[in-house]
Amino acid sequence: MPAKAVVLLSGGLDSATTLAIARSEGYECYALSFEYGQRHGRELGSARRVAAALGATKHLVLRLELRAIGGSALTDDIAVPKGRSAAAMAAGVPITYVPARNTIFLSHALAWAEVLGAADLFIGVNVLDASGYPDCRQEFIAAFERLATLATKAGVEGRSRFRVHAPLIALSKAEIIRLGAALAVDYGLTWTCYEPQADTRACGLCDACLLRKKGFAEAGLTDPIAYAA
Amino acid sequence: MPAKAVVLLSGGLDSATTLAIARSEGYECYALSFEYGQRHGRELGSARRVAAALGATKHLVLRLELRAIGGSALTDDIAVPKGRSAAAMAAGVPITYVPARNTIFLSHALAWAEVLGAADLFIGVNVLDASGYPDCRQEFIAAFERLATLATKAGVEGRSRFRVHAPLIALSKAEIIRLGAALAVDYGLTWTCYEPQADTRACGLCDACLLRKKGFAEAGLTDPIAYAA
Repeated sequence: MPAKAVVLLSGGLDSATTLAIARSEGYECYALSFEYGQRHGRELGSARRVAAALGATKHLVLRLELRAIGGSALTDDIAVPKGRSAAAMAAGVPITYVPARNTIFLSHALAWAEVLGAADLFIGVNVLDASGYPDCRQEFIAAFERLATLATKAGVEGRSRFRVHAPLIALSKAEIIRLGAALAVDYGLTWTCYEPQADTRACGLCDACLLRKKGFAEAGLTDPIAYAA
Repeated sequence: MPAKAVVLLSGGLDSATTLAIARSEGYECYALSFEYGQRHGRELGSARRVAAALGATKHLVLRLELRAIGGSALTDDIAVPKGRSAAAMAAGVPITYVPARNTIFLSHALAWAEVLGAADLFIGVNVLDASGYPDCRQEFIAAFERLATLATKAGVEGRSRFRVHAPLIALSKAEIIRLGAALAVDYGLTWTCYEPQADTRACGLCDACLLRKKGFAEAGLTDPIAYAA
């Protein structure tokens, strides 16, 4: 029987590639997404299509009330920055950071993994092109992995430890795209833009769009989605 | 200006005492509760009354979809054990354990603290009378505290560390009750029972009731709430 894994799936390029990697390693994958009041609600439709296309055994979408907590351009009525240079992106934590988001996401993944009897969690975080989010760094992943075993029955009953896989963490966006393409990920199903246009095209100017476009250009591949700019 | 703290508040005896302690230490307290499909929904009414009585600056109740994850007698249709001996309670993790619950709760507390500019989180966990929950142990609290700073802007920008206060962790239930009584906590406002009766009395037989009754008896104080048994 294949080992089960819980894979965090946003509907974006990185998490789709991560799901493809987990599947290629033989895991039976349980994809987990969140409806948290994000402005870019299109993501969830993409997550459903990606989960189906990549053969997830189950896809669970949980609602979270992160809007009630606030503190981010992704959940509040704060303008998403446009057209920023790589240097501007690299300077500090951007306002699209959602406080403690990956901790909250991984906590739910841990709960589901414990119920499923899965010891493996996958998350598509990435330090190189990650726009300076604190909860995308290796130290954070290692600290969560340590916490996970202590937080659950595994820590009391001395059963196997949890592992948190972050297979993209040290890759550039171009390397991620090449890897996904080799695993036959259909990037036309994925969604990246923080601020989609009314006509459903990606804006092409937010940090997420800029990083994605740069990644496809550097990978020498064509991005199948349409951009407004 | 007093320092702000986020205090997890279930409406039970332990978290009410914890809020009273945080207030007595001078913190401006932001109380956080969750509606997670728990069977004992009376807790939330108690949490509101306790937050008001103890002078919380704000009380936020967030919905979580833990029922969709399952795995616990507190969220699923699994019978809550009744009339267990202390020895039976001490043997292993009980089915009232909710997978990764305290990790999920603390993650949200961390998010809110980051938005509020608070560096202090309070949680009323307790190892002695805690029914064997893995996420009530000191190792877990220490691991979360370490994670918290890495997970947030504090970890990137080198600002002050988060502290997770668990002031009850090494106290007996009787010691907690004596401490709360000294801080004028009205335990008549709190709710403990896992399975309240139709007439609103506590069942008196679930692990939580048994531990509470034993605590009041050992403290030599009268429990102001009514029990069916």
